[in-house]
Amino acid sequence: MTRNLGFTIIPPAASPEPGSASQAPLRSIVLIGLPGAGKSSIGRRLAQRLGVPFRDADAEIEAAAGQPITEIFFRYGEPHFREGERRVIARLLAGPPTVLATGGGAYADAQTREAIRASGALTVWLQVGIPVLLPRVAGRDTRPMFLNQDPAAVLQRLMAARHPLYAEADLVVNCMEEAPEATTDRVQAAITAYAAPARLPVALAGRGYDVVIGEGLLARAGGLIAPALPARRVAVISDASVAALHLPALRRGLEEAGIEVRASLTVPPGEGSKSLATYGAVMEELLAAGIDRSTAVVALGGGVVGDLAGFVAASALRGLPFVQVPTTLLAQVDSSVGGKTGINLRAGKNLAGAFHQPRIVLADTGVLATLPARELRAGYAEVAKHGLLQGPLWDWCEAAGAKAVAGEAAALRHAVLESCRLKSAVVAADEREESAEGGRALLNLGHTFGHAVEAECGYDGSLLHGEAVALGLGLAARLSARLGLCDAALPGRVEAHLAAVGLPARLADLPRRFTVEALMGRMRKDKKVRDGRLRFVLLHGPGQAVTKGDVEPAAVEALLREASCEG
Amino acid sequence: MTRNLGFTIIPPAASPEPGSASQAPLRSIVLIGLPGAGKSSIGRRLAQRLGVPFRDADAEIEAAAGQPITEIFFRYGEPHFREGERRVIARLLAGPPTVLATGGGAYADAQTREAIRASGALTVWLQVGIPVLLPRVAGRDTRPMFLNQDPAAVLQRLMAARHPLYAEADLVVNCMEEAPEATTDRVQAAITAYAAPARLPVALAGRGYDVVIGEGLLARAGGLIAPALPARRVAVISDASVAALHLPALRRGLEEAGIEVRASLTVPPGEGSKSLATYGAVMEELLAAGIDRSTAVVALGGGVVGDLAGFVAASALRGLPFVQVPTTLLAQVDSSVGGKTGINLRAGKNLAGAFHQPRIVLADTGVLATLPARELRAGYAEVAKHGLLQGPLWDWCEAAGAKAVAGEAAALRHAVLESCRLKSAVVAADEREESAEGGRALLNLGHTFGHAVEAECGYDGSLLHGEAVALGLGLAARLSARLGLCDAALPGRVEAHLAAVGLPARLADLPRRFTVEALMGRMRKDKKVRDGRLRFVLLHGPGQAVTKGDVEPAAVEALLREASCEG
Repeated sequence: MTRNLGFTIIPPAASPEPGSASQAPLRSIVLIGLPGAGKSSIGRRLAQRLGVPFRDADAEIEAAAGQPITEIFFRYGEPHFREGERRVIARLLAGPPTVLATGGGAYADAQTREAIRASGALTVWLQVGIPVLLPRVAGRDTRPMFLNQDPAAVLQRLMAARHPLYAEADLVVNCMEEAPEATTDRVQAAITAYAAPARLPVALAGRGYDVVIGEGLLARAGGLIAPALPARRVAVISDASVAALHLPALRRGLEEAGIEVRASLTVPPGEGSKSLATYGAVMEELLAAGIDRSTAVVALGGGVVGDLAGFVAASALRGLPFVQVPTTLLAQVDSSVGGKTGINLRAGKNLAGAFHQPRIVLADTGVLATLPARELRAGYAEVAKHGLLQGPLWDWCEAAGAKAVAGEAAALRHAVLESCRLKSAVVAADEREESAEGGRALLNLGHTFGHAVEAECGYDGSLLHGEAVALGLGLAARLSARLGLCDAALPGRVEAHLAAVGLPARLADLPRRFTVEALMGRMRKDKKVRDGRLRFVLLHGPGQAVTKGDVEPAAVEALLREASCEG
Repeated sequence: MTRNLGFTIIPPAASPEPGSASQAPLRSIVLIGLPGAGKSSIGRRLAQRLGVPFRDADAEIEAAAGQPITEIFFRYGEPHFREGERRVIARLLAGPPTVLATGGGAYADAQTREAIRASGALTVWLQVGIPVLLPRVAGRDTRPMFLNQDPAAVLQRLMAARHPLYAEADLVVNCMEEAPEATTDRVQAAITAYAAPARLPVALAGRGYDVVIGEGLLARAGGLIAPALPARRVAVISDASVAALHLPALRRGLEEAGIEVRASLTVPPGEGSKSLATYGAVMEELLAAGIDRSTAVVALGGGVVGDLAGFVAASALRGLPFVQVPTTLLAQVDSSVGGKTGINLRAGKNLAGAFHQPRIVLADTGVLATLPARELRAGYAEVAKHGLLQGPLWDWCEAAGAKAVAGEAAALRHAVLESCRLKSAVVAADEREESAEGGRALLNLGHTFGHAVEAECGYDGSLLHGEAVALGLGLAARLSARLGLCDAALPGRVEAHLAAVGLPARLADLPRRFTVEALMGRMRKDKKVRDGRLRFVLLHGPGQAVTKGDVEPAAVEALLREASCEG
């Protein structure tokens, strides 16, 4: 991710050989930008290099209408022109791949933007400063907007109105005063190197949303989330550590798309912020900032911030639009997807909250580079859990999971993508965890044991949630084997893999001991207990998990004793 | 409402002439009760008096099966028998009106209960104590359950298991040791005098519920709400004043149907309890009491308790089933229906909350007799508002509203019923107040002005919410006339009616003055403001309300000056 005077080229402009031959692109390329940005001039060159036809939307419109654009504008007005323009652009993009230069106002029209997005074309914004544009547009009289106007003033006005909308383009290339061939080189390089963020739809009736996964998303946050919001107005909630690292980039990314950050609140890092006191303080501050029903709440941080901000979004003004920007591996692979929000009470964790689905989740895997190694590892435990639930992902974990834990970008991206794919499918099928068997409850694999161990350790940082889940996965595999549900070798495999990536997989790996009585007591208080019976998620094998409500307490006690517990 | 050793006869047993001829009932009558309760003996006499056939479900089953019940039980087991029994009962109730005596276990079966309810029959529980039953069942050998058993022990067991289910009957008649003719007199009297509570369905997809309106519902609360709950387990939230008056009756009513009151919390009366601090305290206490996801929260009280308890129900364990038992006129005609819940923040009222629909609303109009006159009057302002929104109800208000304010039972019942009918229709069409025009926002008639005046008075009890709404209705009518929307005579009519029932309708009626600036400032902070513009609900006439987002501030200012405001 390269930052360049606040503008961003994604991905970094690794220069290819100038003029090198390329394969024809699989999708059309749409060039957008202000008048004079060079959409036609660069577009023609780009098309030639890519070996596809070049089209100029304005010329196509004039041909279709049989009259110049100036005339259509004056005769029928702008709405009529935009409608025709949208039809022409949609027709061109429905055909074989092409490079399409659009009029400066086309992408500023919300419906045309939506039509271009829906066509699957790659949109490239040629971003050019006014000093470069001015000599190019001076004296143009073929565009109505420049007739009898001061061109600098017109450009200023256009820039203010349109740049926030152009920010929704897939790619932004910052163009300087240089030869068209040089700009074409840079545009081509950016296209060649472009790795589109992955989009996973979470299919919930009437409230479906996308989980967007990729590197450098913070810097493009505004353009990515604007289409999912009712208004370009947000309040950001973060914690002090995350805000110091990532808030400036997010804020620039939001402001690039004209999204007003009406309030920006930070809470202290750590589980302590999931409290009634912090909830109250955030609510008071947010409402004092004068937010309205169209202001979205953006959570920037890990699971604590996401859970707290989500409950704030669920309850402020009886429900505000919500956006998750998870910055930890744990939050990216787990807590940011699925709509569970909440805070802790004295009686236990997550006892106050709501199901409140986000409008979009931005999982920027680039920010994971700033995570402490231990936290990355802890987050990986949920990836391993998803692997055991899903099957093939478990094979990948055993083969390549260590690379994710070591911070390799491609492995992290795969881990986040496949985890979110599994989780979003489970959530879509059982949003409120109401299935009697299976469903969302399966995501609690390892969590009945894990929560008990975590609670015994007192949430003091000595055992992270993910580490507790790792222990829970090991114990769930052991219990599955003891009950004859799975191959006797599975527990060893699970423990070996978790140990290989540096996670505790057996209670004996911890420096402290537990009593059977204490852990059983904790498990009996679990939110999942129904009619007083312990419920476990157990495994027949990787990819074959089941919920079990009839496990004999004696079997669990014997297992815990075997696992070094006293009593 | 007569209480009789914890048993209840509804309505009070006004004795008719014994054996007097009656018209045939429009619906069938189903007699339920333990073995020996006299279902056949009383049923035969009752049928004769009513001039309809008598049927004995057990005899019909034996006839249909061609073998005695004992045999069906032993050969095929109880589930098979209950299924056949349900079919026979449904068939009998699908025909012309009849008096049907059922076997003691029929109504204890959930599906049979549902089938009887669905048939529209009137169910009468003949409630008889064990000392009376014992000699009647001694030596019976036609029923499998008494074979070789101690009959007293069998009856004890049956009573414990079935009485909570029998409590779902429409009518309960407490039967003593007396001649069958005397019991039949009392049963017939109860049926003749029975006024079924009104049921208004609130038609929300997947979350529809009934508003039940009538006298004496607290005492029957358990039987009424049990069919709407996932489990017979509740936590009751009330305020100290209401709890002193009505909690014992509600508790008895719940316990009659075997509903466990797992927690019973009271908060101080008054708006101050709609605070984050009280919310937090209630949440902690509730969760410490060990509630689970099937425990319903029951709000017993006025708008403050309903709003607070509703938000608790919406957020405890991410959402619990919720029941409204409103005890003020304001809550019965307005706040208990529609799912809006919430608490106040420093920045304003109802800023934290949720849409959380109840499973059922019990509006017991009998409890309104305990309301102070001023509070009853204040609640009536919302009835007048509903009248202006609905049309014919406004005519009723002008003609008979004063009777409701004077506490006449029939007038109160009509006011509550018609208010809830209007509100539930509006809510069903626009649950989350998302309609751009009209819809749920119409319920804010009088509230833009009303909230401003109420806020200026500081919620110190000097001006009740309903009184502020009355003022708001007067001002909204004046504004409507000033803008030429309605007949010039309407404001005078509205003010005259409100004044006639003792409500303030004009700012000049209050002992204090307001400034134009202060009220305009309050209105600009209203939750309903969109994009900085004031929104009003205005009237073309009774029954013809519209939302207006383009009212010139100058017109409102001029109106306020005319209405005695300074500035």
